[in-house]
Amino acid sequence: MGKKVVAIGVDIGGINSAIGIIDQTGALLKESGISTKAYPYYEDYPAYIAALSSAIKEALASLEGDYEVAGIGIGAPNANYRKGRIERPANLWKANIDKDGTAREPAEGWCFELCHDLGEYFPELKHIILTNDADAATIGELMFGAGKGCSDFVMVTLGTGLGSGFVANGELITGHDGFAGELGHSIVVNGGRECGCGKRGCLECYVSATGIKRTAFEMMATLRGESPLRNISYNDFDSAMISKAAAAGDRVALETFRVTGEVLGCALANVVTICSPEKFVIFGGLAKAGELLFAPTRESFEANLTPIYKGKIKIEPSAITNRNIAILGAASLVWRAIDK
Amino acid sequence: MGKKVVAIGVDIGGINSAIGIIDQTGALLKESGISTKAYPYYEDYPAYIAALSSAIKEALASLEGDYEVAGIGIGAPNANYRKGRIERPANLWKANIDKDGTAREPAEGWCFELCHDLGEYFPELKHIILTNDADAATIGELMFGAGKGCSDFVMVTLGTGLGSGFVANGELITGHDGFAGELGHSIVVNGGRECGCGKRGCLECYVSATGIKRTAFEMMATLRGESPLRNISYNDFDSAMISKAAAAGDRVALETFRVTGEVLGCALANVVTICSPEKFVIFGGLAKAGELLFAPTRESFEANLTPIYKGKIKIEPSAITNRNIAILGAASLVWRAIDK
Repeated sequence: MGKKVVAIGVDIGGINSAIGIIDQTGALLKESGISTKAYPYYEDYPAYIAALSSAIKEALASLEGDYEVAGIGIGAPNANYRKGRIERPANLWKANIDKDGTAREPAEGWCFELCHDLGEYFPELKHIILTNDADAATIGELMFGAGKGCSDFVMVTLGTGLGSGFVANGELITGHDGFAGELGHSIVVNGGRECGCGKRGCLECYVSATGIKRTAFEMMATLRGESPLRNISYNDFDSAMISKAAAAGDRVALETFRVTGEVLGCALANVVTICSPEKFVIFGGLAKAGELLFAPTRESFEANLTPIYKGKIKIEPSAITNRNIAILGAASLVWRAIDK
Repeated sequence: MGKKVVAIGVDIGGINSAIGIIDQTGALLKESGISTKAYPYYEDYPAYIAALSSAIKEALASLEGDYEVAGIGIGAPNANYRKGRIERPANLWKANIDKDGTAREPAEGWCFELCHDLGEYFPELKHIILTNDADAATIGELMFGAGKGCSDFVMVTLGTGLGSGFVANGELITGHDGFAGELGHSIVVNGGRECGCGKRGCLECYVSATGIKRTAFEMMATLRGESPLRNISYNDFDSAMISKAAAAGDRVALETFRVTGEVLGCALANVVTICSPEKFVIFGGLAKAGELLFAPTRESFEANLTPIYKGKIKIEPSAITNRNIAILGAASLVWRAIDK
């Protein structure tokens, strides 16, 4: 019997980096992870790469039987697929600030050469491939999820930021420079909230784990009346607390979801005018809030659609409820590279 | 020597319908046209079809030599490629109002079965094909214009309304229902200007021949000081008057272009977050204003781009300065159908 061939999938998020070992049938053989948040500064990046490599090696060592590693596929924010690097990430290493709080910009222009740097720990691997985290999730969804057999759909991932992937004519849109699918940075409020990208009013400042938290604080300022959320400081606050309070009927929390859905629904209606998809698949932590988020999103979506599109387009949660889809998508980059 | 094979290209605009006879090399053998505006009401639509058919037959009759007609390709607003009909057009026949001013909606749901109805006049033709006017122009641009050899670009046509066509991975995005590319109906101002589509704040209410006229009237209200534009009534006003006044240094006109470019630039920057094109090609009457429009558009575009995209994407006028591109694109629908 030949060796089992496996691929490593890595999903780098603002808080955690998830690691999975996947076989060619898409089965997840082993899952692991490290903190991304523990390495916040530019100077910490080499230590992050070392920790990530160790975690991958440990996961592989714990695999039973004989195996061969085909490669590593990585999904990350602001990833440039063509160059194999992360460029100017808004929510990862603070490349423009060092630990003393001094603002600076590295000479090489805020780039993190992930494929190269990880390659130094895995010189034996032929395939180390990086792509946008949302694109990886979209490929995963296309192969194993709600996008199966669908030639026109849009994936929206709600994590620390808002990621997106667009499939048209059955193919992922990568764009001229490999940077397509950054819907989180479309401007929805002129002169609105400050975004990590340097602009103001970007969609992800309103619709993401961070965005909904900001809206909750705006709602506490706008509305009167008691709310358990008023006892929590901004730094101690996370978006799951809003879901919990909303489930208990808290008005601030319910209004926060309503406003979030309103903004998301309008943004998705605008996307329809460009690519007219069959469906939107919503994925990520915030999607777990279910109808609290989906009901106001659908209402605003329909209200903002031009008549020709009304009542035709679905907004649905991903059928896969954990982060595995991102890992599967990342690993599938390796399988696709081998197939070529 | 065999018969020459020709195709008819028709570009239906809110004011005129342009007709062209095209050969397989893309050469325009004959050009003609009729008024669309002369048939404003739902009841006038059959007369419009009769007039269009006569004009096509006249143009064909004037052709010298022996020829064979391969088919008719038509570009029109709100065209459904798959169904061969125009659905709920905002700027063509006022389907919901009859000549007495009574509001009504036809039972068949505001649809104009163009391919079928034109087919009654041309029963011998196998190919009568309809597509979105902007999609037709995009195909024309892809085959003969600025989109040649470009796998990711966006076409924006500025006519009575604002049309658009999106090419990604070398293919026109048609969307799930054939209705992709209606960027003119993306919402840019919440609760903004009333649009013919029934919504408010759509891009084409600000950026189009009609949109810039509305902005000029807003600017006359906002600004003080003399302007020749103040002598013209809304109904007598057309967008070319703004270009003329701006060229003479009129402040109202210049400010009108600045605001128009600001809105367009921001909208195009948002498009980039979805499909990250190599370039935008701007086409249509308003594009003839040149740098009056392009300079403020580029400025706003760059200011609203997320850093990863800055300085990389071109906004350029179509290399083809008349409406022929739309006719060529429409006719090329026939050549593509024959090739299949």
